[in-house]
Amino acid sequence: MTFRSRLAKHLARVEAVLETVLPPEGRAPERLHAAMRYAVLGGGKRVRPLLVYLAGEVLGAPLERLDAPAAAVELIHAYSLVHDDLPAMDDDDLRRGRPTCHRAFGEATAILAGDALQVLAFELLTTDSKMVSDDHQRMAIARELATASGTAGMAGGQAIDLSAQGRQMDVDTLETMHSLKTGALIRASVLMGAWSADKPPPEAVWALSEFGSAIGLAFQIQDDILDVEGDTDTLGKTVGADSARQKPTYPSVAGMEAAKGRAAELCEIAIAALSALGSPAYPLRDMARYIVHRES
Amino acid sequence: MTFRSRLAKHLARVEAVLETVLPPEGRAPERLHAAMRYAVLGGGKRVRPLLVYLAGEVLGAPLERLDAPAAAVELIHAYSLVHDDLPAMDDDDLRRGRPTCHRAFGEATAILAGDALQVLAFELLTTDSKMVSDDHQRMAIARELATASGTAGMAGGQAIDLSAQGRQMDVDTLETMHSLKTGALIRASVLMGAWSADKPPPEAVWALSEFGSAIGLAFQIQDDILDVEGDTDTLGKTVGADSARQKPTYPSVAGMEAAKGRAAELCEIAIAALSALGSPAYPLRDMARYIVHRES
Repeated sequence: MTFRSRLAKHLARVEAVLETVLPPEGRAPERLHAAMRYAVLGGGKRVRPLLVYLAGEVLGAPLERLDAPAAAVELIHAYSLVHDDLPAMDDDDLRRGRPTCHRAFGEATAILAGDALQVLAFELLTTDSKMVSDDHQRMAIARELATASGTAGMAGGQAIDLSAQGRQMDVDTLETMHSLKTGALIRASVLMGAWSADKPPPEAVWALSEFGSAIGLAFQIQDDILDVEGDTDTLGKTVGADSARQKPTYPSVAGMEAAKGRAAELCEIAIAALSALGSPAYPLRDMARYIVHRES
Repeated sequence: MTFRSRLAKHLARVEAVLETVLPPEGRAPERLHAAMRYAVLGGGKRVRPLLVYLAGEVLGAPLERLDAPAAAVELIHAYSLVHDDLPAMDDDDLRRGRPTCHRAFGEATAILAGDALQVLAFELLTTDSKMVSDDHQRMAIARELATASGTAGMAGGQAIDLSAQGRQMDVDTLETMHSLKTGALIRASVLMGAWSADKPPPEAVWALSEFGSAIGLAFQIQDDILDVEGDTDTLGKTVGADSARQKPTYPSVAGMEAAKGRAAELCEIAIAALSALGSPAYPLRDMARYIVHRES
C-alpha cells in the first residue's frame, strides 16, 4: 500500500469513528451536542489520529484498538481550537474555512462545548471495549493524553503563548512553547498508538517517543512558516494572523531560512529515531516528511 | 469519633492533598498555576471530596487510596465554577467571598485555568501511585468521573441551565437539570470512594449509587433554597443571584414548601439506601443530613 492510500484509509476511518463517538445532534442537550459536532466534524488534517494509527501499526496493534485513542486525541485538539479561538483568547472568526464555534453558537456554548469535548476524550478512553485489554496499558494511554494536555503540555504552552504577545522571545523559549503547545500532544498521539500494541518493547516506545518529540516541534515550525507563506484558502484560516497579533513565531524570531532549516533538521532527527524499528516504520518516516512539506 | 470531628479530619486532609497536587506557583507558567491555585484553594465546603472519603471508609478503603480521587473530583468542581462564572456564562464577580477567577486573573487565564484543572483531575487519577492497585478499578474510578463531567452529566446540566434562563420549566425538567448539573458529580464522588475499596461487593456499590443520586439532587435543591433564604456573608456568594438571573430554581418552580419537602424526602431516600450497609455507613447518613441542613 502506498503511503497516500494508507493515509486516505486511516483518514476515512477516523472520520467514521469521530462521527460515532460524538453524541448525536438529536439527543438533549441538542445545542451543546451540535456545537461539539460542528467543532470536530468540520474537516481538519487529523494529523494526531493518523499518528495514532501509524504508530500503532508499526508495533502490530489492530486498527480497532486504535480507534478510541485516535478519536480521543482529536477531541482534545478540537477542544483546544474552540477555546483558543474565543474572543478572550485569539478572537478568531475563521477556522477550517468556516465561522469559529463561538461565532456559530455563541460564546457560552463554545466554552461548554470545549469543556465537554475534553472530558469526552477521557470518557472514551475509560469506556471503549475494543481498546487494548491490558488495563495497565489503557491507563498508560489515558496518562499520556492527560499529561500532554495539562500545564506541562498543551495548556502550559498556551499560557506561555498568551503572555508572549508583543514581547521579545529567544529561540530556546520559542521551542519550549512550541514543544508544549503542539509537540506534547503529537508525541502523545504516537505513544498512545504504541501502548495499544501487545506488550510494546520499551526500546520501541522510547524510539517512538523521540520520533514524536521531533515531529511535534517540526509540525509547529511548519505551521509558523505557513502563517507567512501559506494561502488563506488552502489553510482554511487567515494567513498572517500570528504576525498581525505580534505573536512570536519561528520565522519572526530566527528568520525564515533558519525556520526551514530547523524543520528539515527535526524531520531528519525524527527519521533517525525510527531506525531501530526497521521497515515497518516506513509509513511513519513518510508521515514525518509529509508534516514538514504540507501546504495546509 | 463524632461526625463533626471525622468531617474536620477529612477536611484538613483534602486541603493538604489539594495543596500538594496543584502545581506550585513558582513553576512556569506561573500565572496559570497561580490562577489554578486561586480557584481551588480559596475555601469551599469540599462536599465532594468528603463524600469520597466517607464512602471509601464505609467499605474499608485506606485513606491514602482516597486522596487522589478526592482531589480529582474537587478539581473538576473548581474548574466548573471558574467557567460558570465567566462573563459569557453567569458573569459572576464573587465566589467564596473573593473576586471570581476571571476578575482576579483576566478572562483568558481563567478559561485556561479551568481547562487545566479539568485535565489535572485525570492526570492525577492516571498517575497517583497510592490509589487502589487494581487497574480495572482505577479505570472505573476515572470512568465515573469522566461520565459524570460530560454531556450526560455536569456539562449537560449546565447546557440545560444556559438555555433555561427566563423560560418556564416544569419540576421534572428541573430535577433532570439538577441531577445532571450537580447530582452526577456528587454520585460519582460516592462511587469513586466505593471503587477504591478492595473488591467492593456489587450490592454495596449499587446501594451507594442510589445514595449518591438522592443526596446529589437534595444538595442542589438545598442550594436553591439557600439562594432565597441564605445569607450572602455565610454563603460567600450573592444571595438571590439565581432569581435575579431568572433561572428556574426549585422554590421558583414548585414553591418553597415543596422544595423543603422534596429535600427532606430525598434525604430519607438516601438514608434508606444505606440500610444494607449497616453501622459502618452511619457517617454517610450524618452527611446526608448535613447536606440538607447546611446554611452555606
